[in-house]
Amino acid sequence: MKKVAIIGVGNSKFGIRQDVNLAELTFESVKPAFEDAGVIGKDIDLLVLGSVGSGGWYEEMLPAVIAAEYCGLTGAGLLRCEAACASGSAAVFTAYSAIVSGNTDLALVIGLEKMREIDTSTTMELIGRAGYYLWEFHNFGMTFPAYYALYATSHMALYGTTEEDLARVAVKNHKYGAMNPLAQFQREITIDDVLSSPVVSWPLKLYDCSPITDGSSAIILASEEKVKELGIDTPIWISGIGSSSDTANLSKRLNYVGLRSSVIASQRAYKASGIEPGQVEVASVHDCFTIAEIMAYEDLGLCRKGDGAKLIQDGQTEIGGKIPINLDGGLKAKGHPIGATGVSMMYELTKQLREEVEKTRQAPLNNYIALAHNVGGTGHYCFVTVLRR
Amino acid sequence: MKKVAIIGVGNSKFGIRQDVNLAELTFESVKPAFEDAGVIGKDIDLLVLGSVGSGGWYEEMLPAVIAAEYCGLTGAGLLRCEAACASGSAAVFTAYSAIVSGNTDLALVIGLEKMREIDTSTTMELIGRAGYYLWEFHNFGMTFPAYYALYATSHMALYGTTEEDLARVAVKNHKYGAMNPLAQFQREITIDDVLSSPVVSWPLKLYDCSPITDGSSAIILASEEKVKELGIDTPIWISGIGSSSDTANLSKRLNYVGLRSSVIASQRAYKASGIEPGQVEVASVHDCFTIAEIMAYEDLGLCRKGDGAKLIQDGQTEIGGKIPINLDGGLKAKGHPIGATGVSMMYELTKQLREEVEKTRQAPLNNYIALAHNVGGTGHYCFVTVLRR
Repeated sequence: MKKVAIIGVGNSKFGIRQDVNLAELTFESVKPAFEDAGVIGKDIDLLVLGSVGSGGWYEEMLPAVIAAEYCGLTGAGLLRCEAACASGSAAVFTAYSAIVSGNTDLALVIGLEKMREIDTSTTMELIGRAGYYLWEFHNFGMTFPAYYALYATSHMALYGTTEEDLARVAVKNHKYGAMNPLAQFQREITIDDVLSSPVVSWPLKLYDCSPITDGSSAIILASEEKVKELGIDTPIWISGIGSSSDTANLSKRLNYVGLRSSVIASQRAYKASGIEPGQVEVASVHDCFTIAEIMAYEDLGLCRKGDGAKLIQDGQTEIGGKIPINLDGGLKAKGHPIGATGVSMMYELTKQLREEVEKTRQAPLNNYIALAHNVGGTGHYCFVTVLRR
Repeated sequence: MKKVAIIGVGNSKFGIRQDVNLAELTFESVKPAFEDAGVIGKDIDLLVLGSVGSGGWYEEMLPAVIAAEYCGLTGAGLLRCEAACASGSAAVFTAYSAIVSGNTDLALVIGLEKMREIDTSTTMELIGRAGYYLWEFHNFGMTFPAYYALYATSHMALYGTTEEDLARVAVKNHKYGAMNPLAQFQREITIDDVLSSPVVSWPLKLYDCSPITDGSSAIILASEEKVKELGIDTPIWISGIGSSSDTANLSKRLNYVGLRSSVIASQRAYKASGIEPGQVEVASVHDCFTIAEIMAYEDLGLCRKGDGAKLIQDGQTEIGGKIPINLDGGLKAKGHPIGATGVSMMYELTKQLREEVEKTRQAPLNNYIALAHNVGGTGHYCFVTVLRR
């Protein structure tokens, strides 16, 4: 089977980016990715863009077309992928498949979202349409914090997870976000800060929730032949992708203490890569809410079901622990421009595997295996990607 | 390289479908596709859905999730593709790539659009955002008929194409639509009917324009191994896909007499398939407006640039002519549920290559080679797919 490597990466500053338009925000990640790989737009055969909000929180209906023109890729194969908050990973999956299939040797993947052009209450309403819109949203007025609060209360009831445990995730991710110049939030916080922040949907408080963010991220994927042809020094190989899904209707889920799609997608990714969970040395997991990171520990097989809170209590997911997680600040502190997030995980893990991040937040590596876990909706979609140097 | 076949197809009735909701409309094409292939939802590893209007002309934000649950595919890999009116083909491209890459052996592709839930003037506004929204739409109020009218006037000025020539395309496609029980319009029309219909954007009149349609289409793709395992009688092989794109900004196009993305995508598809344009025996081309079909003849290399009108005048694109085109009625008469259209072209051409359509509209075949040409926006995207029996 053809091998595929990440040969160039770029990431915009995440945050409220009213200083740039959609095309400019895109180029802010694409330009460094081009420079990193040593290629330009016309070298690239295929552009796959992950984004959700077209015609919703931003007005352009065809963001992929605007990105292609602005970045000099006109004429390339072109499409947009959507898998809610896992759209970036869906775009990576599509470009990866196209290279393995022999359709192209060099592809650009962009994750893009501009969510702060409209008032955040409207954005919250649109995000709340994830899942079974006509049932849950229309009948019960569910929003995303409310969905994850269901999971948090269930996890607390069954496993004794506490509000302090949830807060510990936010504290850890803010700690690393403070070391990441691209992060939306660069301030450390305390457990008390989290516990005393306004309740959004109990037990989730403001600091348990990831923010609404503008941002873009870009990676360039190449076939093994192209890696050689371009003389790339440190290609980062995609060694396997697993994906899965779950019911639209939350009332049909088996339980509310984990995401079945995370379990299945990760098993598929481990199998495709020929690795066990214990071999992963650094990971980015989908911490849209603090409870989501604790469930991810368990669903990905990094600990047993119900032991997630213990992992964060013991500092096992910080540098120096068993498996450092979200060393870029995660969705919680780096920010969560939803279509960009999955691509931004590839950006971060590529930089980690190349040992190019700020020294204070570099994971210690021996076997150079990384994992990205990207969830769409409330586990409606999940993509897990394993990278190796 | 792994071979990929279409082993099951289904298509809903196209039209104004206020009798069904989004999930029901989807299942109306998926059920016959399952029956045709002899599989059920849980056999399938990957669902790729092509759709544009989520949160726009229909309210659900995650149509792929709703489709997966309703059709019994929960747990499968899942994503949505968007390439404007070529979204269905983008979904086919993605599922095809995933099978060739070895990720999956059996995939379901659904094209879906429900455009008649809101008033058509709002839908027209949303469609008009294709292209460079902030420039063309906001500054000039361009709508889609206006975009294609630019092309029509240019083609008329340069090549002498007439309003009657445009009308001939509508007459031909309504003739075949009248033979297709799935078509939105099942009434034959005359050249006079077209010429006397209300002007929408000169020279395009009402009958030069495809309608706004609800509909779904589904195809099941399988690897060669799976085709053997399932004992499929008449697999229809995807022998090559070419894709390309063009500028967002129409003012940067080279000319207005053809679509460069159609030229490039078709050349890529011919190369991937190892065929010449003259070998194609039946085709579905993107006749969103009558001028688009005439340009497609030329861009696909079925005649020389500027000779498109002659092809329709001479009846060469009807049954009995050199290359019968749009024997299902095309977008013009079958209808154009934009995310479904590319998949519906695969449905129609699979049925043609199997010789299973109504006898009066069956193309005569010797080598059993078919071509689908699906454009997004005003050539912003293009996918060309070659099928062989």
